[in-house]
Amino acid sequence: MQHFSNRQIKEWERFYRANFINSLSGFKPVSLIGTVSSEGIPNLAIFSNIVHLGADPALIGFINRPIEAAPHTISNIQSVGEYSINHINASIIEQSHQTSAKYAAGQDEFTATGLTTVYKENCKVPFVAESNIQYALQLVEIVPIKQNNTFLVIGEVKDVYLDASLIQPDGFIAIEKAGSICSLGIDGYYNAAAIARYSYAKPGKKSAPIIF
Amino acid sequence: MQHFSNRQIKEWERFYRANFINSLSGFKPVSLIGTVSSEGIPNLAIFSNIVHLGADPALIGFINRPIEAAPHTISNIQSVGEYSINHINASIIEQSHQTSAKYAAGQDEFTATGLTTVYKENCKVPFVAESNIQYALQLVEIVPIKQNNTFLVIGEVKDVYLDASLIQPDGFIAIEKAGSICSLGIDGYYNAAAIARYSYAKPGKKSAPIIF
Repeated sequence: MQHFSNRQIKEWERFYRANFINSLSGFKPVSLIGTVSSEGIPNLAIFSNIVHLGADPALIGFINRPIEAAPHTISNIQSVGEYSINHINASIIEQSHQTSAKYAAGQDEFTATGLTTVYKENCKVPFVAESNIQYALQLVEIVPIKQNNTFLVIGEVKDVYLDASLIQPDGFIAIEKAGSICSLGIDGYYNAAAIARYSYAKPGKKSAPIIF
Repeated sequence: MQHFSNRQIKEWERFYRANFINSLSGFKPVSLIGTVSSEGIPNLAIFSNIVHLGADPALIGFINRPIEAAPHTISNIQSVGEYSINHINASIIEQSHQTSAKYAAGQDEFTATGLTTVYKENCKVPFVAESNIQYALQLVEIVPIKQNNTFLVIGEVKDVYLDASLIQPDGFIAIEKAGSICSLGIDGYYNAAAIARYSYAKPGKKSAPIIF
């Protein structure tokens, strides 16, 4: 094993460092976030830094880069108070990745990338028709991360849309059966294959794998 | 597609809801966090809600559950100011999952689960010898998430330990070659297989997949 110190990492060329650090934290739940501006222009952007915060209330967070680097999603969420998160599957990686291009504020990334908007009853924001697992969040709070001017955007799950056959008897969603993928670093996309689920662990009792 | 509303989800039995919501946000970068108490007792616990915050400074966050549910890791981090994060590979899933059992504060999960501590020069905390990608973080800030009494623990990357052959020419780390896995929900473990990396996206220019 080789050792890399913080001092060395700081001296690296910025894209090399970004690739390295973005991969180091592990695989990510890459998804498309759909929003709409107060003028009604749909916006779609790929996000991979999404994190489960809690199940009751059902809270999910994502990290928005500094405003100058990524202004549209966060400002639409602030204006409208809602957003959709749409899982990416292998058939839409190219279009999904393309949403990371710096389109102007007035440009709709759905049209620009060839993905299809779908609107649902009771939701103000567009979803991605090609996505097999879609959910809508209600904005709860935007927490500034002062160390690097990013934001933790916290939302409460409002509506979920998926095929009920994906849900196991205990509520676990086998998202790989819907084709949902994960990502690594800034630009790597991966398929995930189930190894096993494990039973609830207790001290002194060996947890058993449950093949599924 | 079936629609599940927030109102329905709130009415579900709590374990069913926890499995569902924990799966909904997607695949996770499951890892083992190693700490040591001020009395010198090592602690090891599995965490899957880990999130990349930025590459310069190199910041990584993780979500710690409410203190009553998960007191040891966060209190050790507060006392010592450092912690290690260790990728999980398929050969140590059972031991890693077992660290989620509620061991008493005085019990060392390394010994209890059969994983091996390794200490490094310049780091106060133990690493997991069986892990192929290990890194140490310096505590930067603990941000309380007031909606559910969880915490976003922010650390700066201090030291990284991995086989240099995993690093691609542009800094991307092919962590699957080190056997690193991901997780889903509370208890599902998955292997990840690379599909492709995609080139930097620009408006009007089609991004090309780079098979790796």
